[in-house]
Amino acid sequence: MNNFTFYSPTYFVFGKDEENNAGKYVKRFGGRKVLLHYGGGSVVRSGLLDRVKTSLKQEGLSFVELGGVQPNPRSGLVYQGIELCRRENVDFILAIGGGSTIDSSKAIAAGTVYEGDFWDFYMGKPVTKALPIGTILTIAAAGSEGSPDSVITKEEGMFKRGASGEAYRPAFSILNPALTQTLPPYQTACGITDIMAHLFERYFTNTKDVEVTDRVIEGLLMTMIHEAPKVIENPNDYQARANIMWAGMMAHNNCCGVGRDQDWASHDLEHELSALYDCAHGAGLAVVFPAWMEYNMHHDVMRFAQVANRVWGCAMDFQHPEITAKAGIRAFRNFLRSIGMPQTMKELGGKEEDIPYLAHTAAYGNGNNGTLGGFVVLQEEDMANIYRLTL
Amino acid sequence: MNNFTFYSPTYFVFGKDEENNAGKYVKRFGGRKVLLHYGGGSVVRSGLLDRVKTSLKQEGLSFVELGGVQPNPRSGLVYQGIELCRRENVDFILAIGGGSTIDSSKAIAAGTVYEGDFWDFYMGKPVTKALPIGTILTIAAAGSEGSPDSVITKEEGMFKRGASGEAYRPAFSILNPALTQTLPPYQTACGITDIMAHLFERYFTNTKDVEVTDRVIEGLLMTMIHEAPKVIENPNDYQARANIMWAGMMAHNNCCGVGRDQDWASHDLEHELSALYDCAHGAGLAVVFPAWMEYNMHHDVMRFAQVANRVWGCAMDFQHPEITAKAGIRAFRNFLRSIGMPQTMKELGGKEEDIPYLAHTAAYGNGNNGTLGGFVVLQEEDMANIYRLTL
Repeated sequence: MNNFTFYSPTYFVFGKDEENNAGKYVKRFGGRKVLLHYGGGSVVRSGLLDRVKTSLKQEGLSFVELGGVQPNPRSGLVYQGIELCRRENVDFILAIGGGSTIDSSKAIAAGTVYEGDFWDFYMGKPVTKALPIGTILTIAAAGSEGSPDSVITKEEGMFKRGASGEAYRPAFSILNPALTQTLPPYQTACGITDIMAHLFERYFTNTKDVEVTDRVIEGLLMTMIHEAPKVIENPNDYQARANIMWAGMMAHNNCCGVGRDQDWASHDLEHELSALYDCAHGAGLAVVFPAWMEYNMHHDVMRFAQVANRVWGCAMDFQHPEITAKAGIRAFRNFLRSIGMPQTMKELGGKEEDIPYLAHTAAYGNGNNGTLGGFVVLQEEDMANIYRLTL
Repeated sequence: MNNFTFYSPTYFVFGKDEENNAGKYVKRFGGRKVLLHYGGGSVVRSGLLDRVKTSLKQEGLSFVELGGVQPNPRSGLVYQGIELCRRENVDFILAIGGGSTIDSSKAIAAGTVYEGDFWDFYMGKPVTKALPIGTILTIAAAGSEGSPDSVITKEEGMFKRGASGEAYRPAFSILNPALTQTLPPYQTACGITDIMAHLFERYFTNTKDVEVTDRVIEGLLMTMIHEAPKVIENPNDYQARANIMWAGMMAHNNCCGVGRDQDWASHDLEHELSALYDCAHGAGLAVVFPAWMEYNMHHDVMRFAQVANRVWGCAMDFQHPEITAKAGIRAFRNFLRSIGMPQTMKELGGKEEDIPYLAHTAAYGNGNNGTLGGFVVLQEEDMANIYRLTL
């Protein structure tokens, strides 16, 4: 196990109707003038936005609004948000939505108090200062509600890039599983895939003697496998939604990623897919991650056999561990298919002839030096090979 | 799953040599005049205290000292600490030691800024204000390094009581597994037992649909079962110590206890044992907890079968689940014996004729109303029966 620090100071408020306490928490964490940031019509149509406004008014808080966040949130709206916050002297940002809305809120929070272009943070500058952020989560997936991370797409060129810093950790996050019940099965499945990907990115490590984090990751993966079929069958299953939502937070606040090298190549490979084809992040991961596993399995067959045996219940083949390892990858593919996720790049609108561009951008974009990943260090050619496995 | 809030703002610093950064963290969290609080000679003899002092001096911080914390920390030393802190205008308490030292530090931290008797907090008054606390942990066990809890023994009558409040969460905690390598096997095993007890107290719940926290608890229990034999065989196994230490934190910061009713009767029953016989907390738990399980198994046989199957690897008997449930309890007893823990009250110096007193104090002490526990609500007679099973 490596030395590490772990810091997760977000105040989590979990359960039914808790969005009605939003005003109380904004006040508790120092907000006086709030930007309400959200996406499309569902937050409005469902009455959620009105309930939050009522809660703010009850606490005597004033607010301005900025809707219109898209999946794969864009830099254009971030610039608008920054201008609005400065003009209106906003001192607190309340994100109402999923990972995209939260990520957009984080970018606005940092950009408002920064003299330069907020995009600097997405080109590698550490985020050290930002307005405080609260979130009301409407989709279990991103983990952005407890993480120090944000991903934004720059419209010029459709570059999708990440930024990170402790100032990006939300002061509070309200997680009401009932708010996720209106999500259609496809988006629900995308969220489930994303949560599992966050766990796998941490699981595949070269660091030895990390039993405690291995076991927690495995437990969270088994939770997803156990609960996902329930919500696909019955989107109104509050209890299954609740289990998935808390697993999503734990998957990404890094309590199970500490003390170990992590990989994250699959996320980088996926970001190129959703930037170019504007597909859902989870759908892109469903295509890329099993291919990444297949391509890299021989780097550490026993680690793949371990997850196959412990998580997927595949019998251990002690004479041929690679049989078990492969069975685990197959089980993951079968699971993804069972919840309605795509299997191939073509289903996302991808084309074989784009692969050289995708691999090159993945390798050299975002200030990368030509390689991706920590478990296996991928060269541009490996990236192209992995994309090819998804055809 | 129940509604809940989760807040764990402690900054954790984990790994080799990190105690040399103590001064840096005290400063970061606002300390200027520090009370160094510790127990017996090992902190001094090992050179740890000197390293910490050097680190404080490097940051220009001044300090006073109070040693002498005993296992089952006493109120007398707390009163001394409060007086010292007031006289010296101490604004930060740095605990160097295990759960006892941290718990004593918490009591001093609250008592220093409270006009009344600090014991009020241990009679049920919520702790809302305390000096900031840092910890340098030398034993993996208590979880006090990340928890809002403290337990103190009042010398008049040897009453052992707990207090709780967010102000008791340490600002930072330094966890260096190497510092635990000098612990003798018996104390190490006591710590391991305590960690597992923290997990079981949360596991045995009547709340339904808590798969995510079930799975995390199970993962942490399996970690303990996997790592414990290594440190018992080789106390210098840094990696096993590291896994146990992080599991100990996760077992007790409540990330795996949220959204579910918990039990805690075994802890209350144990507190009476260690208060009367001055035995180690973990040793008392090793005696009480399996008896509690045996006594209450029929309340929810399937829950006991689940842990037996998932954690202890007992084959599920689908026709007679109670066979599996019992096998799990037996496996726990065998495990405790294998790490050198006592099995009976007699080994702790307990006597059968004390049982009525123990049961009565457990039932009616600490402001209790005659019952203990949440999974099964125990009456005084049940408590006596459980003690009797430990003879």
